[in-house]
Amino acid sequence: MRDVAVIGVGMNRWGELWEKSHRQIWTEAAIEAIADAGVDHVDALYVGCMSGGLFMGQEHLGALLADQLGMGPIPGTRVESACASGGLAFRQAYLAVASGEHDIVLASGLEKMTDVDGGAATYALSTAADQEYECYHGITFPGLYALMARAHMEKYGTTREQLAMVAVKNHDNGSLNPLAQYPFKTCVEAVLSSVMVADPLHILDCSPITDGAAALILCPVELAKKLKKPVVRITASGMATDTIALSSRREITWIESTYLAAKKAYAMAGKKPEDINVIEVHDCFTIAEICVMEALGLVEKGKGGKAVEEGLTSLQGKIPINTSGGLKAKGHPVGATGVAQAIEVVKQLREEAGPRQVKGARVGLTQNMGGSGGSSIVHIFERS
Amino acid sequence: MRDVAVIGVGMNRWGELWEKSHRQIWTEAAIEAIADAGVDHVDALYVGCMSGGLFMGQEHLGALLADQLGMGPIPGTRVESACASGGLAFRQAYLAVASGEHDIVLASGLEKMTDVDGGAATYALSTAADQEYECYHGITFPGLYALMARAHMEKYGTTREQLAMVAVKNHDNGSLNPLAQYPFKTCVEAVLSSVMVADPLHILDCSPITDGAAALILCPVELAKKLKKPVVRITASGMATDTIALSSRREITWIESTYLAAKKAYAMAGKKPEDINVIEVHDCFTIAEICVMEALGLVEKGKGGKAVEEGLTSLQGKIPINTSGGLKAKGHPVGATGVAQAIEVVKQLREEAGPRQVKGARVGLTQNMGGSGGSSIVHIFERS
Repeated sequence: MRDVAVIGVGMNRWGELWEKSHRQIWTEAAIEAIADAGVDHVDALYVGCMSGGLFMGQEHLGALLADQLGMGPIPGTRVESACASGGLAFRQAYLAVASGEHDIVLASGLEKMTDVDGGAATYALSTAADQEYECYHGITFPGLYALMARAHMEKYGTTREQLAMVAVKNHDNGSLNPLAQYPFKTCVEAVLSSVMVADPLHILDCSPITDGAAALILCPVELAKKLKKPVVRITASGMATDTIALSSRREITWIESTYLAAKKAYAMAGKKPEDINVIEVHDCFTIAEICVMEALGLVEKGKGGKAVEEGLTSLQGKIPINTSGGLKAKGHPVGATGVAQAIEVVKQLREEAGPRQVKGARVGLTQNMGGSGGSSIVHIFERS
Repeated sequence: MRDVAVIGVGMNRWGELWEKSHRQIWTEAAIEAIADAGVDHVDALYVGCMSGGLFMGQEHLGALLADQLGMGPIPGTRVESACASGGLAFRQAYLAVASGEHDIVLASGLEKMTDVDGGAATYALSTAADQEYECYHGITFPGLYALMARAHMEKYGTTREQLAMVAVKNHDNGSLNPLAQYPFKTCVEAVLSSVMVADPLHILDCSPITDGAAALILCPVELAKKLKKPVVRITASGMATDTIALSSRREITWIESTYLAAKKAYAMAGKKPEDINVIEVHDCFTIAEICVMEALGLVEKGKGGKAVEEGLTSLQGKIPINTSGGLKAKGHPVGATGVAQAIEVVKQLREEAGPRQVKGARVGLTQNMGGSGGSSIVHIFERS
């Protein structure tokens, strides 16, 4: 397979974008990525979107967006893996270039979530869990992650304060990101006194409902070298699944799909956890970031909370995680999240991250996750 | 890229399967395909599903089905291109093997459409059209295809009787297919006296609402040669998009996306329309089959109706189309349709089609279409 590089990125300010339709939001990001890459066309597009049907009443997004971009008849492929839909779109775009099927490919993600009422959004998101074996009994995602948090606290002594510190760190980073939905700082006291959603998770432990899109342009490394931008290579793509229902897992504090996707990615890139300089992970809830740190092998099992408390993952720490603000502060338009993670890592490796730049970052990793870990997708990037 | 073969097929009887859940329907088809191939595992699965959210309240099907099959942690990828979702799953599975990313891949499709009421099903299907520019004004798919039919009649003199003859032919073929939802014969008079849905389309001009799944196993040709089954190669995969809204097209009787997808496929396989022995096309409405025949270059523009009338496309004709019964008689669980088309062609090339066998068929073609032609996917198959 061919070596693949990212040559362009585009993303708009995320938030409650009531004044724009889904097609406008997506097209803004796509055109910015195309302009950033300096190309005049793309050969195909991939778009991650979790539930076009339930959130927007619109499926068939591959065709619609190719049309909207004025680039029909290019193939437009929509992929879905719940909240990992963006990571999956990036992976499929990577494979399309690596295989030789296409040369210049747009990898994108989109979700417009605020045009339905709160209950309908929670229902739409719950379709990422097992409807027949989980949701039927009344549980939704805050409840599922609360179970994971409770078990982690019980088993490893993780504290509510440590959970809150994930939110505080990510909002610190998000306050430096002009595209974040909630670019404000917070503190442990504010998180712990915010409204309880599902004990032990307060609302400030949860990522928000967001409208947003993100896009990147991929091409073979040989072609990228002819362009002016720093060459950021995609050196690994790993994907794995796990039981979709939490109740079927041996151990609910351990995200096996992330462990296996990362294992494949580390092997493919020839890297170890300690080689990574900058990381974006799927912090849909604060506990998720802690569990993912452990599954990625960044810290030992059960030590995630302590590591956050010690500042290991802060912008100035040894392993900066979610420099973009993460899902927590940047927002979580589910289909776009995995794509935006890749954008942040590319910006870091290009040294274009401004006040949140990690100095000398050469190797980055993204981890995007569907449901309560039913699917995980890990990519590794390197600046040559 | 590597040469790819189909080594296994699986499909259950389609219909109104109220006694089975979506996971059961899909797993039956998947296990049959795996058994038919004689393999003991797959390395990845792709599933086409148009609207898991609106029809079943269940997204994240890649992970759910990998889990259900007992083959997690394999990557499970759900793709969507409206009614071409099955064709897209097949295409992505083909690319996954061709690229070398995976060796043995399950290509599958699923839709369970009857668990919602009739109005909700029509709404769910309408999300394949442009919600903001088409559906908002009250039109749904029978109306869109009725516009195409009216224009074809006006421009080329196509008759209501010729439309009805597509239905008659496909039900003749479907009566020979034990897996078809409606394996009965009909006649022109019955079609023309059936209830009017959208003038000139009667209900017997329309494909039904269906529950169903279908699956195939793909692997490199080199591996397929070691197995006992006849080797059926996938010699081309073409995909193209067009404007999603019918109103944006220059000419609504011409399906440009099918023309372009076929053009790519013919070039890739080194074949011409006259080289094809057996064809499955996307007859969601009778007019669709006529337009598609023209876009595939099987007959001249405007001559599709006449060709059907003359028996060119019947089981005994020169170019047998929809030997399976097509969407019309076999049923149309939208995400599974494109996969089932590939199954029919593989069965024909293996000479396993029983009473509907096309003698000596060596080259086959499938054409799967999203919406009113916003996306089209064409594959060519050859028996070596």
